[in-house]
Amino acid sequence: MGGERKFTAGLARFFGGARGVRIGIGDDAAVVRNPARDSVVCCDPVVASVHFDGDADPALVGRKAVNRNLADLAAMGATPDWLLVSLVLPRGWPAAHRSRLLRGIRAAARAGGAHVVGGDVATVRGPLVVTVTAIGHLQGRALLRSAARAGDLLHVTGPLGGSRLGHHLRFSPPLRAGRWLARGNSPVRAAIDVSDGLLLDLHTMLQASGGLGAELDARALPVSRDALRQARGDRDAAIRAALADGEDHELLFTVPRRRRLPAGGPLTAAARRPIGRVLARPGLWLVDGDTRRRVAPEGHEHDLAAS
Amino acid sequence: MGGERKFTAGLARFFGGARGVRIGIGDDAAVVRNPARDSVVCCDPVVASVHFDGDADPALVGRKAVNRNLADLAAMGATPDWLLVSLVLPRGWPAAHRSRLLRGIRAAARAGGAHVVGGDVATVRGPLVVTVTAIGHLQGRALLRSAARAGDLLHVTGPLGGSRLGHHLRFSPPLRAGRWLARGNSPVRAAIDVSDGLLLDLHTMLQASGGLGAELDARALPVSRDALRQARGDRDAAIRAALADGEDHELLFTVPRRRRLPAGGPLTAAARRPIGRVLARPGLWLVDGDTRRRVAPEGHEHDLAAS
Repeated sequence: MGGERKFTAGLARFFGGARGVRIGIGDDAAVVRNPARDSVVCCDPVVASVHFDGDADPALVGRKAVNRNLADLAAMGATPDWLLVSLVLPRGWPAAHRSRLLRGIRAAARAGGAHVVGGDVATVRGPLVVTVTAIGHLQGRALLRSAARAGDLLHVTGPLGGSRLGHHLRFSPPLRAGRWLARGNSPVRAAIDVSDGLLLDLHTMLQASGGLGAELDARALPVSRDALRQARGDRDAAIRAALADGEDHELLFTVPRRRRLPAGGPLTAAARRPIGRVLARPGLWLVDGDTRRRVAPEGHEHDLAAS
Repeated sequence: MGGERKFTAGLARFFGGARGVRIGIGDDAAVVRNPARDSVVCCDPVVASVHFDGDADPALVGRKAVNRNLADLAAMGATPDWLLVSLVLPRGWPAAHRSRLLRGIRAAARAGGAHVVGGDVATVRGPLVVTVTAIGHLQGRALLRSAARAGDLLHVTGPLGGSRLGHHLRFSPPLRAGRWLARGNSPVRAAIDVSDGLLLDLHTMLQASGGLGAELDARALPVSRDALRQARGDRDAAIRAALADGEDHELLFTVPRRRRLPAGGPLTAAARRPIGRVLARPGLWLVDGDTRRRVAPEGHEHDLAAS
């Protein structure tokens, strides 16, 4: 008898039960009650030395593994319910690391209103891989990345850039904002999670919406403190960071030009100020005072073309 | 621009739409219609050199990644609906391997009546990790591993042992059997997926049912052809293989002593013959003709105690 069964029994206690969990951790599968007829589902892995440094605090790795998925649900306007967690642990990984990883997962799940109901564990000669599946439901409509239209104004829910200084491990998914943007009376058209960099995710949204373009106002971009710190006072470098760094996990969304966002709600004043607008013809443009130049949709994606 | 976006767009075409998919691959998350109020969910990874040899046909790896999860749903009596697939690919893995992997995933999904609606991909310096999440629903009740009672007769849906000769990559999940065992008029009490070896999974079932024991009849065990071939004519070795090899992905289930399985349905004649019975006191016993000896719950599990 090795440790897996004991470990799994421990997990059932660790994550505990919750309302709506008919059968939790410990059987061949979990049985959960759906709060609505439709479910919103996504699944993202985080991998050591790809999504975090090998010496990152395992609690923050667990947090990130959960929150990356909750950010995807947020971008649909969904409310999280259930999580499944698959752990591929490096052989010989200290038990104390494992505990911190699990505590980070549980804390992020609770903060997001979600509950871990299942998963699996394996040990391997290789890097840590934590794969989380999130299942949620809609209270309003679904926010789609394909719904942008020419003339829409562009908004973003929070500051961008410099995420590698720590935000990429510590961000909170914009669940309240996503739900609010998806309410029945909301004028919001399209939304997308800013994970690969503003320009690249904007490009993805415009492509999904039929091949549109956009113009961004450099002076309206919300540049994060970390982007400024990273740029050491170089304004252009800070703006480049805000445009392309990625892992911001804010929501980029569009609003028809003549509609106004309702008062109240969780948006900051900055999120209510447009950062640019959608154009009918493809191409990304950056306006900075009197200059206007074309920019490439740079950002982060896994290069599969090389293989 | 690397290849990830193109790859994802290709996946949307490759897996296509299906009835009940409101929003499929390509947005931040998928939106799917649940056929029932409760969902049955599970998530299992397969990892190179842990769950398959590095030189295994990627199509069979994809098949196994899906079917391991469908076998878990089968053991609950559930019907599969939706799959999410997370791929962690070794850097430089040939594109042809990737195609075969995806084709294996799609074929197994279709065979099981499930549809791939989302997932993610990353490349890594490390082994291939394919993590599948399966979401299904119940038509009858849920089959639990905790429902065995002293006096129940033990059954298994198919032959056991020697899985490493190929069955572990090529098995079909016992979905029809699982659904049939879970029907309203079925006398079946407990059920569990035989993944870690009959003895170990039986032990798990007995522990989950409050600390019971069991007696198995060596002469009634359905020994697979591969177990016999692997044992090269050594009968005891073949029986040991059937007891402990694992990755059979048949269903072990219990039936109250005085109840009979209904006629008809997908069970083989062998599956209708008991292989043993549940005892009130803990401990596993193997009866072989006139001898009766205690056996340990040996099988396969990931050794987390060492770390």
